[in-house]
Amino acid sequence: MSEAHALDAAMLRALQLAAHGPSTGINPRVGCVILSADDTVIAEGWHRGAGTAHAEVDALSHLAPGAARGATAVVTLEPCNHMGRTGPCAIALIEAGIARVVYSVSDPGAYSAGGATRLRAAGIRVDGGLRESEGEAFLGDWLVAARLGRPFVTLKWASSLDGRAAAADGSSRWITGPTARTDVHRRRSAAGAIVVGTGTVLADDPSLTARDASGDLLPGQPVPVVMGRRAIPSTSAIHTHPHAPVFFATESLAEVLADLHARGIRSVFVEGGPTLAGAFVAAGLVDEYLVYLAPTLLGGPRLAIGDIGVAGIDDQRLLSLHSLDRLGDDILVVARPR
Amino acid sequence: MSEAHALDAAMLRALQLAAHGPSTGINPRVGCVILSADDTVIAEGWHRGAGTAHAEVDALSHLAPGAARGATAVVTLEPCNHMGRTGPCAIALIEAGIARVVYSVSDPGAYSAGGATRLRAAGIRVDGGLRESEGEAFLGDWLVAARLGRPFVTLKWASSLDGRAAAADGSSRWITGPTARTDVHRRRSAAGAIVVGTGTVLADDPSLTARDASGDLLPGQPVPVVMGRRAIPSTSAIHTHPHAPVFFATESLAEVLADLHARGIRSVFVEGGPTLAGAFVAAGLVDEYLVYLAPTLLGGPRLAIGDIGVAGIDDQRLLSLHSLDRLGDDILVVARPR
Repeated sequence: MSEAHALDAAMLRALQLAAHGPSTGINPRVGCVILSADDTVIAEGWHRGAGTAHAEVDALSHLAPGAARGATAVVTLEPCNHMGRTGPCAIALIEAGIARVVYSVSDPGAYSAGGATRLRAAGIRVDGGLRESEGEAFLGDWLVAARLGRPFVTLKWASSLDGRAAAADGSSRWITGPTARTDVHRRRSAAGAIVVGTGTVLADDPSLTARDASGDLLPGQPVPVVMGRRAIPSTSAIHTHPHAPVFFATESLAEVLADLHARGIRSVFVEGGPTLAGAFVAAGLVDEYLVYLAPTLLGGPRLAIGDIGVAGIDDQRLLSLHSLDRLGDDILVVARPR
Repeated sequence: MSEAHALDAAMLRALQLAAHGPSTGINPRVGCVILSADDTVIAEGWHRGAGTAHAEVDALSHLAPGAARGATAVVTLEPCNHMGRTGPCAIALIEAGIARVVYSVSDPGAYSAGGATRLRAAGIRVDGGLRESEGEAFLGDWLVAARLGRPFVTLKWASSLDGRAAAADGSSRWITGPTARTDVHRRRSAAGAIVVGTGTVLADDPSLTARDASGDLLPGQPVPVVMGRRAIPSTSAIHTHPHAPVFFATESLAEVLADLHARGIRSVFVEGGPTLAGAFVAAGLVDEYLVYLAPTLLGGPRLAIGDIGVAGIDDQRLLSLHSLDRLGDDILVVARPR
C-alpha cells in the first residue's frame, strides 16, 4: 500500500470514528488515527463531547509512552491550539514525538486555530486539506457556525403579495396554506433555536414547537428563545415547549447570538415580529431569508418587516435569489445576502 | 358537400373576411357569408369599422332585391339587435327574407345582444356556437372587454421582497433589473391605455411610453391616462408621448373605465401609485395582477400598494397564482382574482 493510499484510508477511518461523537453541543465531532512509520494503524480515537479528551489525545492515550515517536497523526480537523478544559492538542502531539500530522479541515475557531503553525514551529511536517470536502460536509452546521463565530441565522416570514403579515385588525390565521406551513415546521425542526420578540409572544401566544401536519411534535425541537423586556405570562403556550424557553431581556442581537453559540446552538430561526426581524436585517445578521408569499392582498399597516435602517435606494439590502418554488397555493422565496 | 360541411366552410370563410376589418376601435371584427338554399356562396361581407355597415348588411348589399329570400346567413358574431348608427342587423336579415342564421359567438354586449331571440321571433331558424372557440379567440380582447362591460384591467407593480416600492426617501430607480423592465414594456405595449395617478406624474415624471431595451419606442403605444385633481405641469414628460394624454379630474374608476371603453380601449394597464392601485383593488376592478419582486429589502413607509379596504383576514383579497417566473434576478408573479 502506497503512503498516499495509507493516509487516505486512515482519513476515511478517522471520519468514521468522528461519527461516534455527539452531533450536538459546542464541540465538533473529530476522529483521529495514528499510523506507525510503516503505515500501520497503531491507535484510534474520537471526541466524546465537551469536557472529554479531544480525538488526538484520546488516540495517544491508547499508546505506551514513547510509542508515538516518529508516527503520523491523521485527524479530521486541524489540531487545536486552544488551552481549554483539555489543553491544546498541538502540544500533546509535539510532546508525544509525532513526526507528521495530516488533517482534513482547517480549524475555523477564533481561539482554537493556529495548531498547524504551532506544530510546524516544532519541526513537525503538517499537511491539511485531505478529503476536505467530505470533512467539511461531515462537520456541517458546526463548521458554518464556527466560521461565522455565531449561529447561522435564518429569517423567516410569511406575507401577502403586498408584504403584509396580517390584516389591519391584526388577524392573520392563516395567510399561507398547509403545504407552506408544513415546510416551515420541517425547517424549524432542523434549527437549534427559534427566536421571537416578546411582542409576538404577547400577540400570538405561539408554542414555537415544530409539528407535523397532524399537529404532533417532530423529532427535532428548536430551543425557544424570547428577546425583549416585556413580561411574558406564565400561562403562555411557550412554557409547554419540550425545551425550557430562554429569555433575554436585551435588545443586543450580538449578545444573544454569542450566548446561544456558547450553548452549542449552531443555527437560529428568527420568526419575528416585524421589529425583531427588521433589527436582524439592519444588523446584517441574516444568513438566509425564507419568504413565504401567499396569493392574497391585505393592505393596511401590518407589515411583515419593519424598519431596517435603509434611507435611500443606495442603502438597499441586496439579496440573491437562491430558489423559488410553489408550495401549494403559496410561493417560497429563499434568498441570501449578496 | 353536406350541409354541415358547407356551413363549416362558410364560417371559416366568414372568419377570414372578418380579419379584413380594423383590429382596434369600439366595434368587433365580423365577417358574413350568405349561402343560397343549395349551399352556394352568393354574397360575402365584413365590417370596416365604426359608422360603416355591419358585416351582414354589407353582404346583403351585394345582392339584388329578393335574392336573399330563403338563404342562410353565416356570421362570426350573433347579429346585433342594437339601433346604433347603422340599425340592427337582425331587422335587416328579417327584411331580406333570410330563412336561417348560423353564428359563432354570442353577442356579449349589454345593448346589442338579443339578436338571436329577435330573429327566432320572426320565424328564422337560428343556430349559435359554430366554431365558437376559433370565433372567441379571433375576437380576443374585444370580447373580453365586451363581456366585462369595461376594459380588461391589469394592475402592475414592482416591489422589494418586503413589499416596498421605494426607499424611505422616495428613491427607487431601479428596483428591478433590465429583464423585468423589458417585460413590463412589452406588456405595456400590448395594452390600450396606461393609467396613473397625478401623484405618480408629479413624483416620477414618467413618459408612459412602451420602449425596447435600447430606449426606442415599441410599435404599440398605450394611450396615457392620468387620474386625479392635481395640475400637471405642461413640461411633464407625458406630453411627449406619441398619443395625447387623457386627463380625468375624477376619482371614479368606473367613470374612467366606461369612458375608455367607449373610446374603443379594450385593456388598461394600471401602474400606480399606491393610492390609485389600492383603489382599483378595493373596487374589485382588477382582472390580472403583475407583481415584479426584486430580491432586495427596503423597509420604510413607501409601500407598493396602499389601502385596499380590508379590515380583517376574512376580507382579504384572495388571488390565484397564474404563473411564477424568474426574470433575470427578479420574480414575476401573475395572479388573478379567485
